[in-house]
Amino acid sequence: MENTPVLLELGTDVDEPCLRADAARNRARLLDAAARLVAEHGAAGVTMEAVAAAAQVGKGTVFRRFGDRTGLLTALLDHSERKFQASILSGPAPLGPGAPPVERLRAFGCAALRRAADDLELQLAAEPCPDRRFLVPPRQVRYGHVLMLLRQAVPDADCELLAQTLMGYLEPALIHHLTRQCHMPMDRLQAGWFDLVERVTGSGGSR
Amino acid sequence: MENTPVLLELGTDVDEPCLRADAARNRARLLDAAARLVAEHGAAGVTMEAVAAAAQVGKGTVFRRFGDRTGLLTALLDHSERKFQASILSGPAPLGPGAPPVERLRAFGCAALRRAADDLELQLAAEPCPDRRFLVPPRQVRYGHVLMLLRQAVPDADCELLAQTLMGYLEPALIHHLTRQCHMPMDRLQAGWFDLVERVTGSGGSR
Repeated sequence: MENTPVLLELGTDVDEPCLRADAARNRARLLDAAARLVAEHGAAGVTMEAVAAAAQVGKGTVFRRFGDRTGLLTALLDHSERKFQASILSGPAPLGPGAPPVERLRAFGCAALRRAADDLELQLAAEPCPDRRFLVPPRQVRYGHVLMLLRQAVPDADCELLAQTLMGYLEPALIHHLTRQCHMPMDRLQAGWFDLVERVTGSGGSR
Repeated sequence: MENTPVLLELGTDVDEPCLRADAARNRARLLDAAARLVAEHGAAGVTMEAVAAAAQVGKGTVFRRFGDRTGLLTALLDHSERKFQASILSGPAPLGPGAPPVERLRAFGCAALRRAADDLELQLAAEPCPDRRFLVPPRQVRYGHVLMLLRQAVPDADCELLAQTLMGYLEPALIHHLTRQCHMPMDRLQAGWFDLVERVTGSGGSR
């Protein structure tokens, strides 16, 4: 896994530049409608029929554009994941480049926790099956980023395994469990992330 | 979550003592047949029909006993999970009681990795959906054990979050990815576990 260029590899190339202007507008309208449905009714409220009705188009249009419900959910997530990736690649430090690796790791986890909390139901509904979960491009991109920072922070460690451990803390299913089932506030999850980064990188001066 | 007693809470009480002797024999024969099918053909080879044929009983018997395929897979896993729990609760140290907490954590991870490798396909096939994954009794039992040991080893830490992190390293889906898709040997995963326990508990003298 190489450095930052991997951040440009995206899930499905849904914003292909050759999309005709009216098709692109149509697509954006469908995704806006789907996002409103998620906000109002949760991920369960997003059906192909509901999106068609909310966007005032025929059901066939939604199926032609996204294939099925999973395709639609993935496209929705893809949109916010792209913004997230852009802020890692070229946004302001410490999330973007220009800060020491441990600071960037801390910022990455906070941003990932916030992003997971925003889209939690959607991410659970679109969770890939176990034998594909670690291969989907958004996961690979995040993993590559964490790996790059760990290699700078702890060059002598088995950074591939440590990167998987850090990624595990940010799994939507775990965040769902901790916040919804154990009722932990996000502040505690964030403090736990800082603590974990400190332990994993040995960066705490006081231990 | 309290101490060792939680280890006795088991998934489904499948070995209930009131099970009539012939029913218990019948059940054991079905599970033996299913285990042979897993060994020969992988988890995909375990269908209700195949188990009935291999155990030379009617298909209805398999359905009456296990409900559906997930029930059968869960019963199969339950059998080996009980042995695993028994070795944690009352087996020889350091996996069982009588060793310092960090040593017990090290031993627990090794045993869990071995156990995951043995039953990997079965565990992936029986993976609970994301909103139940952290609530199933076998997971709760393991989590409670890791939590108890962490509270002894690092009493001032947020042990609940650290326990989830350690558990994440032992997720069957991750072990599948690392061993089957990244071709890492189990020795490396084991060394990674020792390293992680050391970093999380701050138990490495040399850092």
